[in-house]
Order: sequence, then C-alpha cells, then structure tokens
Amino acid sequence: MSEESQISDSEDLQKRLAEVQTLLARHKLAEGLAQQQEAPPQPDDGTEEQARHQHLEELQQKLDSMHPADIAHILESLPLDERLLVWDLVKAGRDGEILLEVSDAVRETLIESMARDELLAAAETLDADELADLAPDLPRDVIQDVFQSLSVEEREQLRAAMSYPEDSVGSIMDFEMVTVREDVTLEVVLRYLRRFDELPDHTDQLFVVDREEHLKGVLPLNVLLVNDPEVEVGAVMQADFIELQPDDFAEEAAKAFERYDLVSAPVVDHDGKLVGRVTVNAVVDFIREEAESEQLAHAGLREEEDIFASVWDSVKNRWSWLAVNLVTAFVASRVIGAFEGSIEKLVALAALMPIVAGIGGNSGNQTITMIVRAIAMGQVQPDATRRLLRKELGVALINGLIWGSLLGVIAWWLYGSVKLGLVMTSAMTLNLLLAASAGVGIPLMRQRLGSDPAVGSSVMITALTDSGGFFIFLGLATLFLM
Amino acid sequence: MSEESQISDSEDLQKRLAEVQTLLARHKLAEGLAQQQEAPPQPDDGTEEQARHQHLEELQQKLDSMHPADIAHILESLPLDERLLVWDLVKAGRDGEILLEVSDAVRETLIESMARDELLAAAETLDADELADLAPDLPRDVIQDVFQSLSVEEREQLRAAMSYPEDSVGSIMDFEMVTVREDVTLEVVLRYLRRFDELPDHTDQLFVVDREEHLKGVLPLNVLLVNDPEVEVGAVMQADFIELQPDDFAEEAAKAFERYDLVSAPVVDHDGKLVGRVTVNAVVDFIREEAESEQLAHAGLREEEDIFASVWDSVKNRWSWLAVNLVTAFVASRVIGAFEGSIEKLVALAALMPIVAGIGGNSGNQTITMIVRAIAMGQVQPDATRRLLRKELGVALINGLIWGSLLGVIAWWLYGSVKLGLVMTSAMTLNLLLAASAGVGIPLMRQRLGSDPAVGSSVMITALTDSGGFFIFLGLATLFLM
Repeated sequence: MSEESQISDSEDLQKRLAEVQTLLARHKLAEGLAQQQEAPPQPDDGTEEQARHQHLEELQQKLDSMHPADIAHILESLPLDERLLVWDLVKAGRDGEILLEVSDAVRETLIESMARDELLAAAETLDADELADLAPDLPRDVIQDVFQSLSVEEREQLRAAMSYPEDSVGSIMDFEMVTVREDVTLEVVLRYLRRFDELPDHTDQLFVVDREEHLKGVLPLNVLLVNDPEVEVGAVMQADFIELQPDDFAEEAAKAFERYDLVSAPVVDHDGKLVGRVTVNAVVDFIREEAESEQLAHAGLREEEDIFASVWDSVKNRWSWLAVNLVTAFVASRVIGAFEGSIEKLVALAALMPIVAGIGGNSGNQTITMIVRAIAMGQVQPDATRRLLRKELGVALINGLIWGSLLGVIAWWLYGSVKLGLVMTSAMTLNLLLAASAGVGIPLMRQRLGSDPAVGSSVMITALTDSGGFFIFLGLATLFLM
Repeated sequence: MSEESQISDSEDLQKRLAEVQTLLARHKLAEGLAQQQEAPPQPDDGTEEQARHQHLEELQQKLDSMHPADIAHILESLPLDERLLVWDLVKAGRDGEILLEVSDAVRETLIESMARDELLAAAETLDADELADLAPDLPRDVIQDVFQSLSVEEREQLRAAMSYPEDSVGSIMDFEMVTVREDVTLEVVLRYLRRFDELPDHTDQLFVVDREEHLKGVLPLNVLLVNDPEVEVGAVMQADFIELQPDDFAEEAAKAFERYDLVSAPVVDHDGKLVGRVTVNAVVDFIREEAESEQLAHAGLREEEDIFASVWDSVKNRWSWLAVNLVTAFVASRVIGAFEGSIEKLVALAALMPIVAGIGGNSGNQTITMIVRAIAMGQVQPDATRRLLRKELGVALINGLIWGSLLGVIAWWLYGSVKLGLVMTSAMTLNLLLAASAGVGIPLMRQRLGSDPAVGSSVMITALTDSGGFFIFLGLATLFLM
C-alpha cells in the first residue's frame, strides 16, 4: 500500500466514482465548448486553456490520493473513452500496481493503449511474482526487455513463477520473506528486524532455515513477541506447520488456509529448501476468482466480460455455449420428430412434454450439484456410490410420485383421459429416476476418469433429461395411447 | 489451534479418513463376531472384551492427535452410524471447537445425539462470538443455561453478537484484541505483549485507543518491529485505516479485505468506540459460504445437504424449487395448449419449438449473469441502463441472425418449407431480443426496488424465455403458415 493513498469503504468508493464522472463530464463539456468556438484558438489565450484543463487537474489530484485498487475499480466502471482519459492521468509510477488490480478484460484495453516504453516502465516497478501474473497480457518483446533488466535472482524467480500452471501453488506464491537461523536469540531477531524499513506484507511468521536454506521451522511473530528475548529461536519455533510445494494444487493450499486459519505458509521444493511463501491475500483472490469463474462457466460465459466491451467481443465470449446448447436442443428436437405421428393423433402430448423434460432437468441439476460439491470437498469415498445412488433414487421416486401424480391429475382434468394422466405420472417418475442416476453417475464416472466433475456437468445432465424426457413420455404415450 | 494437534495437507487428510474407516470396519467386524458367539459372554472374559475395544482405542488415539477442522471433515464424510460412533470417541473438551467447524447439516445430527450436560460443557469452552454462531442450533434451554454461566462482559458480547443479522459485520466479528495507548513507547508495548501467554489469532496490528475506548489509530506489528523502541506509539501508528461498523454488510467488509489485502480490521460503534475486530479467516469463511450458497441456490437447493441425509430430509430441501419450476413449466404448457390447433395442422412445430425456447433461456442466462455480477461489483452506474441494453440487444440480434438462420435452413431442409424456415429464424431472433431485454431489465429493476438482483433471476428469465419462446414461435407460425 503506497503511503500517500487513502483507503475507503464501499460507500466512499461509489462517491469517488461519482465525483470522477462529474469531473469527466465537465471536462468534456469544456472541450466541446472550446471546439465550437472559432478555430484555431489564439495561441496566447492561456487563461482559457487553463480553464479547460482545470477539471483534469482536479481529477488528477483526486486520483493521486487514491489507492491503486480503488483506481482499478473506477477504471472498470467507466466506458472505454473515459477509461482511457483517466488512465492517462494516473501517475506513471503506479501503472504497474493498477494493472495488477484490474480485471483481465479491462487490463487488455489498458495495455492496448500504452506505448512500449510506458509498459516497460510499469513492469519495472513490479516484483517477480507480480510480473508473472501480468506477463501473459504483455507483448512478447516487452517481456524480453523486462527480463533483460532484471537481476539474476529476479530472473530466476520470474522464470520459476511463470513455469507453474495456473492453478498451482507456484502461480500464487511470492518471494518476499524474512528468514532467521535456529541458533540465535529472539533479541537478535528483534534487532535484525529493526534494520528493515518495513517487513513484507502479511509477515505473520519468520521462516527458520539452515545454511542450505532448508526449512527447519516457523517463528510466528506472536511467539517472538510474547517470549523472553534471551530465548533461542530453536527453543520456541514451531516444527509442525503446513508446508506447500510449488506444484501442489492452489485449491489444496486454499483449503489448508481455511482449515487452519493461516495468514502465510512456506513453499518448499522437493529437497525441503524454502523457495517462497503463499499469503492469505493471494488465497482470497484465488477463492474469489474460482467462485466467479465457476459462476460464469455455469451461465456459459467463457470469461469475465468488460461490461463496456464491444458487441463483437461479447458475441465471441458467448457463442461456444450457445453452439453446444444448439446441438443438444437439436438432438432433443429429433427425438420429438421421431414421434410426430403420435403427436399428430394426440396433440395434447406436445403441450405436456416440456413439463416432463423440464422438471427432470431441474431435479437432475439438484442431484449433480450436490454430488459435485461433495466430491470437491473430498467427502465421497470410493465405496459410497451405491449408497448415494440408492438415496437419490429414493428422492427421485418420492418426487416423481408426488409431482407426477399431481400433473397426472391435471392432465386428466384438462384432457379428460385417465390413461393420459397415468402416462404423465409414469413418464415423470421415470425421467426423475433417470435424472437421479445420471446425477450420481456422471460426476463419479468423470472423477474416476480423472476429469474435473464440475465442468459442463449441468449441460450434460440437461441434455440427457431433455432428450430422455421426450423419449420416455412420447414412447409411453405411443405404447399405451395409440 | 490446540498444541498437541497435528495439521495435515489434503492428501494426508484423505489417508487419515481411510484409516479411520478401516478401524471402524474392524471394530464392527469384532462386534459382529462377539454377537455371533453364544450370549451372554462370560463376564470375566476380559481379554476378548479388550480385543474388541482395541480398535476403538486406536481410533481414539488417532482422533486425539488430529486438528478439530480435520475431525470435522472426517465426521462429514461418514454415514450417520459411524459418524456418531466417532463423535462419542472425541475428547469432550474439543466438542465445541469441532461443532463450529462442521457444516450446518452435520452439526444438527451431532447436536441431536448429545445430552444436555454435554452440550453445556461444549458451549462453555467457546468464546462469545463462537457461541453466537452455534446458538441457533442449540436447544433454547441450553442457551439459557450457557448464558447464566457467562461473565457480565461475555453476556454483553454474546447478546451483541446474536443481535446482528446474518450478513452483517457484527455477525463475523470477534472480541479478542490487544489495545494500547498512544502515549507509551514501543518498548513499553513490547514489554506489555510479553506478559501475554499468546496473542489472539490473527493479531497483525494492535489497536490504539484513548481512555474512553475511542479508536485513534492502529499499530501494525510490522511497524512495531522495525521501529526504534524509544519511539512513542502516537508517532508511528497509522491514522488512516479501514474502520468497520457492526451493521455494515459483511460483503462490504469482504470487499475491503480483498481490495486492501487486510488481515484484521477494527469494528467501531457510532461513537467511534472500539467494539471488536474482523479477521481474515472469518472473511475467508464468509466468502466461501457466500459462493457456496449461491451455487446451491442456483441449482435450487435450499441449503447445504449432508450427503448422508435421509431421503426425506433431501426431499424437503429440494421440493420448493421443483414446485416453482412446475408452475412455470405449467404456464409454458398452457401457452402451447393455446396453439394446439396449429400444431395439429403442422406437427413439425412441436419438434422445433423447444429449440427456440431453450436457446432463448441460455442466452438470457448469459446476459443476466453478467449484469447481476456487474451490479454486485458496483460497476453499474444508474445512467448505464440504456448503454447496456443497446449492447445486449446488439449481441442478441447478431446471435439471433446467425443461429436463427442456421436453424431456419435446417428446418427448411428437414420439412421442405421455406416459410417454416423463415418463421424459425424470426422467432429465434425475437426470443433472443426478449431474453436480452429481460436479462438487462430484471436485475436493474430489482436493484431499483431494493431487492437482491441475484436471487431467483435465473428462474425468472427461464420462465419468460420458455413461455415467450413458445408464444412467439407458435404465434408467428399461426399467422404466416396456417
């Protein structure tokens, strides 16, 4: 956190955003008036020029006092032209920090607007782990130049950070940490710390290492502070601590942070050497991003969208999901097509069939969401399949009989046919049983095959219960009513 | 974290779970064998009795060495009978901590199995803020007894903590914090801290207060440690810090923690008096729970389900969603019913209509998810409605023309009617335009009316695009093809 920047709660932030927008509007108005006047304006007309820039200067002052995360929020909330105007006013030295804070989609628009030397300058203000986050969005030649400008150690760190896959501990770790030796007293540690200007953010513990950088234990500041300064580090350090490895899944690290309420955790390589640490802020960001990308994926959005993105960018972000659904809808449509003869004879079938398919989809999604969640939490043991299936089939049977009977009675009442009502009830029950089996089976099978049970589960089950529902209902009707 | 307990990464945890299950299985086997032998067993047969209990003892030792959060995980992963067996073996002193860690559904099953005095003993090990979390699940008379056993200060804290609504800062704050005065030196602070056995968890900063407990500033441990001990607190404390209020939304606190990478933040009342603090672990839990309940709500599950819940509990958890969907499906069915005459004449309509409705639903969900998200992030300004609507209508028009034309051609090819193809294309485009308007309009209107734009948005838009899609398609077909 840079020292001069103010922090603000959400209400303040909305107020600041409104102020920025007012200043932008005034500036535009002034610009507009200036252009309406006869061109060219007299070159010595300094006062008017000054008046025109007054709003921008006020805006700049406002921005200078704001926290990078807050500026990021404001940039995200502005349409492209205003966004770039504000971006130009931001002090060059803070570009890097702000680029780290904005969403991917908005970051792209900002980077596109920057010249090469601006990008270089921004990148040079960042640490290796931050650079690694930014690198995928930077032009290749900029990265190369940045790389040249780093020290050997930083190059090594950047190379390491960039080499880990996106969901690994390596991708969320940083390299700022304070290490101490086992055989010194706490007094020595306290004196050592006083030589720092400031400790790295989120330093809640120091790492105790030997000469070869092997991690021997951790010394929480908590412990450092409550113990007698004459005591040696080795006597009070904790030897039982969470130790992450760079190629662990970040999700596992997040779970460990949650379970044990950690603020930071050391990362060691295969030889037990300390290579970095993960801090809770990186974990919070990771959890939030995971939750968001799941939410987006659920609605079929490929990635987070800049709400001011062009129509064309939005179309690209959304088309693949629509294409997949078009295919599944087409298959369902062909299933119906196969029974056109029956529908022609009894047109009530056309009105009733979407109910059977729809409720099946809803029920299947309930089951699959629960199972996927339990798998993700590690609660599903290999031998639990049969138990879960039995339970879900039980739920489906009860729901099928209750709701199916209700609909059967309604169908009977609407169309005056008991047999149609009975077909409705049976089709509903059978489709719910299908939904339950698939809801348990699809995620467990995918888990066994080693793929992520969450991805696309909802599409798969909806496709199945749609086509299956139409087939079961129209098939039963053809058998018993024709 | 209790001192004797071991912590473990996820792999370890799964291993421990497997060990527990093996011991449980062995115990059951031994019990089974004992029962098969002629009853009653000889009372002096101590060795056999001992052998039977050996597995349980081994299990108990294993449990004693585990972290409460890990025991909670194991309880959640076991079916009810085994769960209660394990629960009986857990040291009574740790009951409270573990009850805090398990999911709501599992907590209910555990509390049901406990006698009143056990519950009382468990509750007495907890802090006021923890008690407040547990209280809603405890029998009323137990709470009253617990209340009697508290000190006046704790009673006040418990009353306060329980009085805040679930999503408020008050509900996630705790009361453990270290306060210091402005006019003492850091040396004095360091000596004061050494008098603690340990500092409260997540103490990354001390709170600087005056005699009336008004918060004057914060002293990060970081600052305490790097500065000269002769300096006074007032000279190095930070006066610009996030200050929460108990009735702020917890979500706002979470956003502040994310924006400014906080570990703890003070909570003050309206007079500026320090009343508690929020720590990052409470925020992490809150974020995770929010994400989960959103995910569950999206699939129509009322609350988190114990995967080993009875069929009946599951039915209750799921029925309301199915009921809502049944109503919307019924409405859609009646829309189709109104056009039965047309379907009878041209049965192809029955096969094609679900495609129009389905793709409309998908597209509408994409739009609404994006808008709801942007509203939640505070990115949607009141004057943005028109801009967003224009963009979404543009996206819908492009998608409608592309996918609609494709389907139009397919319909023409399948049924040999150009006019049917044209109806298909127009219906698709119109339904996507309807989906886009509703996708922008529903959440913005609900925001303006002061309700949460996220809740039930998906059901509303799907209901609209289903009924709307059938109506548009069958209506156009009736107009132009009959």
